[in-house]
Amino acid sequence: MTHQKLFEQIQLKKSFLCLGLDPDLDKIPQHLVDTSQDPLFDFCKAIVDNVQHLCVAVKINTAFFEAYGVAGFASLEKLITYISSHYPDLFTIADAKRGDIGNTSLRYAKAFFEAMPFDSITIAPYMGKDSVEPFLTYEDKYAILLALTSNEGASDFQLKSNGEWELYKQVLTTSQLWENASRLMYVVGATKAEHLKEIRKLVPNSFLLVPGVGAQGGSLEAVFANGANKQVGLLVNSSRGILYAGNDENYTDAAVAAAAELQQQMAKLLG
Amino acid sequence: MTHQKLFEQIQLKKSFLCLGLDPDLDKIPQHLVDTSQDPLFDFCKAIVDNVQHLCVAVKINTAFFEAYGVAGFASLEKLITYISSHYPDLFTIADAKRGDIGNTSLRYAKAFFEAMPFDSITIAPYMGKDSVEPFLTYEDKYAILLALTSNEGASDFQLKSNGEWELYKQVLTTSQLWENASRLMYVVGATKAEHLKEIRKLVPNSFLLVPGVGAQGGSLEAVFANGANKQVGLLVNSSRGILYAGNDENYTDAAVAAAAELQQQMAKLLG
Repeated sequence: MTHQKLFEQIQLKKSFLCLGLDPDLDKIPQHLVDTSQDPLFDFCKAIVDNVQHLCVAVKINTAFFEAYGVAGFASLEKLITYISSHYPDLFTIADAKRGDIGNTSLRYAKAFFEAMPFDSITIAPYMGKDSVEPFLTYEDKYAILLALTSNEGASDFQLKSNGEWELYKQVLTTSQLWENASRLMYVVGATKAEHLKEIRKLVPNSFLLVPGVGAQGGSLEAVFANGANKQVGLLVNSSRGILYAGNDENYTDAAVAAAAELQQQMAKLLG
Repeated sequence: MTHQKLFEQIQLKKSFLCLGLDPDLDKIPQHLVDTSQDPLFDFCKAIVDNVQHLCVAVKINTAFFEAYGVAGFASLEKLITYISSHYPDLFTIADAKRGDIGNTSLRYAKAFFEAMPFDSITIAPYMGKDSVEPFLTYEDKYAILLALTSNEGASDFQLKSNGEWELYKQVLTTSQLWENASRLMYVVGATKAEHLKEIRKLVPNSFLLVPGVGAQGGSLEAVFANGANKQVGLLVNSSRGILYAGNDENYTDAAVAAAAELQQQMAKLLG
């Protein structure tokens, strides 16, 4: 998917919401766990079918599938295949935090861009340029680099400065020099909204994937005010706040209501 | 597996060799690809069956399995189950480069330590403490943090200094303060043998996983001289140099010869 098409979807749906799928068998409605042959898939499918008109992107957290071994991986592959074929206008993200030496990253790119039809994948930047470049060779696919994450441990390394730049700013500026840098996006936690203005200056044209709004304390208004660019350039993620809004037979209604509330706030901000 | 048991295996086998399994269908002997129902598994099994007496650890590169989707993931699960049940004295490493916020890392720990019986997993440290700690709650299991890798991109961020410490040294020293830090090991590329002496001072008791000897240019003697501690504390990895030493019906003989050469060098160094 191109930046332009993603922007058009944002305008059409008046939304820059990313639906995060972190299916947890301990939180999925019990009747589904009891009756479904594949509760990971069936739960996510039901949420996507009902919420897809309110969001422009879907982020699948691969760990929640891998935790169940081969069966979980099969559910993951089934889910992304279903979403990409039924809702081709949704921008899909493998939240997989991969990254390795070049010939290994090449295999991860094959896994997520060929064996599975994701539009993008999150990448840890620690190993540098040649660990990221294999993902950038695919037209209209994106590598979403971790820059500043929303967890406590972000302060351990990401916020450490070399005198001039904190590490996350080094990641932003250095990676912008790589080949096909237009296929990079960045993860920036909403709990750090005060940093967003500076980040936007460093990467004026890149989309930012922003977790941490709502449950984790970030403000949507602050994110938009500091982070939006001409193409909006923001995908604000909500996972648990939508997935587990309800936990009985009416869980999809509760999910729709939670997503609609966010979408309406976004529509206002988009004007 | 405990440090002590790993050390005993090193003494017993006079080897600190780690066999790296990166099975590539383009390099596996053609007769296997043509005839096997599961060439990834069959190739790796044959190599392990023949080489296991010469090495103390086996490192499986998960990307080479994930590249084939569900079928590849099934081969991975079958392989680690086979190795851990047939060769329980081999220390097993999932070379998976995972790492995410706490509740997600918890799922990756379940994937690699419960759904699959690995002894350890490689982790990218970018997200800090709470992204690593879930892996450290398992007794006799290990998280192997990327410190200084052997690829070109290592210089992009890992070697950048904050005035006092390069990032990889910050990773070493900061992580040693975390709970259960005795369950940490570190990846240190052999191409940086000159750094090994300093690294050993910072983490005197930790095992170091060292890729990059041989094909990538590192010297085994220099690694041992600079990196060994009282328990040896080194796992030197060789992947392609063993796996693809031969490419016809006699590929296992060629693999054994390549591994034996390394093991004999190690035996000399161990004295």
